[in-house]
Amino acid sequence: MKLTVVGLGPGAGEDLTGRARQAIEAAELVVGYTAYIALIRNQFPDKEMVSTGMRREVDRCRLALEEAAKGKNVAVVCSGDSGVYGMAGLIYELAREYPPMDIEVVPGITAACGGAAVLGAPLTHDFAVISLSDLMTPWEKIEKRLACAAQADFVLCLYNPRSHNRPDYLRRACDIILRYKPETTVCGFVRNIGRAGEEAVTLTLGELRDREDVDMFTTVFIGNEQTVLLDGKMVTPRGYLQRP
Amino acid sequence: MKLTVVGLGPGAGEDLTGRARQAIEAAELVVGYTAYIALIRNQFPDKEMVSTGMRREVDRCRLALEEAAKGKNVAVVCSGDSGVYGMAGLIYELAREYPPMDIEVVPGITAACGGAAVLGAPLTHDFAVISLSDLMTPWEKIEKRLACAAQADFVLCLYNPRSHNRPDYLRRACDIILRYKPETTVCGFVRNIGRAGEEAVTLTLGELRDREDVDMFTTVFIGNEQTVLLDGKMVTPRGYLQRP
Repeated sequence: MKLTVVGLGPGAGEDLTGRARQAIEAAELVVGYTAYIALIRNQFPDKEMVSTGMRREVDRCRLALEEAAKGKNVAVVCSGDSGVYGMAGLIYELAREYPPMDIEVVPGITAACGGAAVLGAPLTHDFAVISLSDLMTPWEKIEKRLACAAQADFVLCLYNPRSHNRPDYLRRACDIILRYKPETTVCGFVRNIGRAGEEAVTLTLGELRDREDVDMFTTVFIGNEQTVLLDGKMVTPRGYLQRP
Repeated sequence: MKLTVVGLGPGAGEDLTGRARQAIEAAELVVGYTAYIALIRNQFPDKEMVSTGMRREVDRCRLALEEAAKGKNVAVVCSGDSGVYGMAGLIYELAREYPPMDIEVVPGITAACGGAAVLGAPLTHDFAVISLSDLMTPWEKIEKRLACAAQADFVLCLYNPRSHNRPDYLRRACDIILRYKPETTVCGFVRNIGRAGEEAVTLTLGELRDREDVDMFTTVFIGNEQTVLLDGKMVTPRGYLQRP
């Protein structure tokens, strides 16, 4: 009775860790969201896999726990990290309804780190990660987090920045941040990190506000006071060159 | 002329990604802080490696850039991620003094994700990462970030929480956080993530304040309003079970 929650990294390709690969190889059944199973299907051709659709997180985790309770070695796969907006928390919550079993959480490269590497080095100093999805978080709480993080000059990393149902959320978020950070703040975004069609853009906070091409597959980075563009790369100096 | 900044993950062991391993294998010279070179020395026995001591970050990066400018394929290795408090930013800053070269940043599992996986699932919701080291950041700025992040109910992840020279920093940080979060807030810390002697502790914010056994090799997690202990694991429910 073993259940492993595995973070695949942004694209489940070369950024997969050795431990994640071993966990999938050792599993008798792999469970995940359709799009994530598609990312690993070809790499593990003989593996039994079950995929379920969007917003079926609870069903998916229950299925995994049920199969593990029957004695199977089961892996639940998540894009990016298994914890950061991933399934590890839900698995621990639901596990209390099942017989005791061995649960292991295997971390993966989250989009904050994966996207930062594509843009340059925006996260070399204190940063805050905020999801703009209000499916499970009141928008007022998200607004407060945006305001507080901007006020304290964190680098911000935004997950789920914009979708068809929420076309104006990125603009609303930028308007809050613009109360505390100047329009010229260096920003960037990366779409399809580590996947086909990966694309990185650097721009100012004023420009970011009006971008229509940011979607659910995009991670957004908003610099702090020190963040600069160096030969097209978004870089937040940590201060080594200024150290006394 | 190729320089790769490689994140090794917390312990440079099974949490090393495929891309990081390939980058080290492809490098003709590997440069890093003594303790990080020690972590990978045995895994790449025939590789030319140069290690330099603590606080020699600028020298280390210059050495790597000089060797790359001579035509070598050089890898600079960092513990955890290459960006998060890593060397990627400094490399981009210094690279402008050298001939143009191909620079690649390879992300790694940062201690926030690696430590969270050991504790359970504390980072499943919005979080802020703050270093308590004031070597390069004024303490007033750190205080403001602690206060703002606590006020907005972020989960907090603290790097460099305490050292010989700064024995009271964790206490000072907790006192600021205690203005906004109750003493009973669920917290945890992990020492030596992914390395020999890995140790995880869960406790309350009130208890964390007075811990003397938190050191520079420890990463600290402070929960949000929802964070709970479930069978000894620190878990921040994201809200799937409460979703309408």
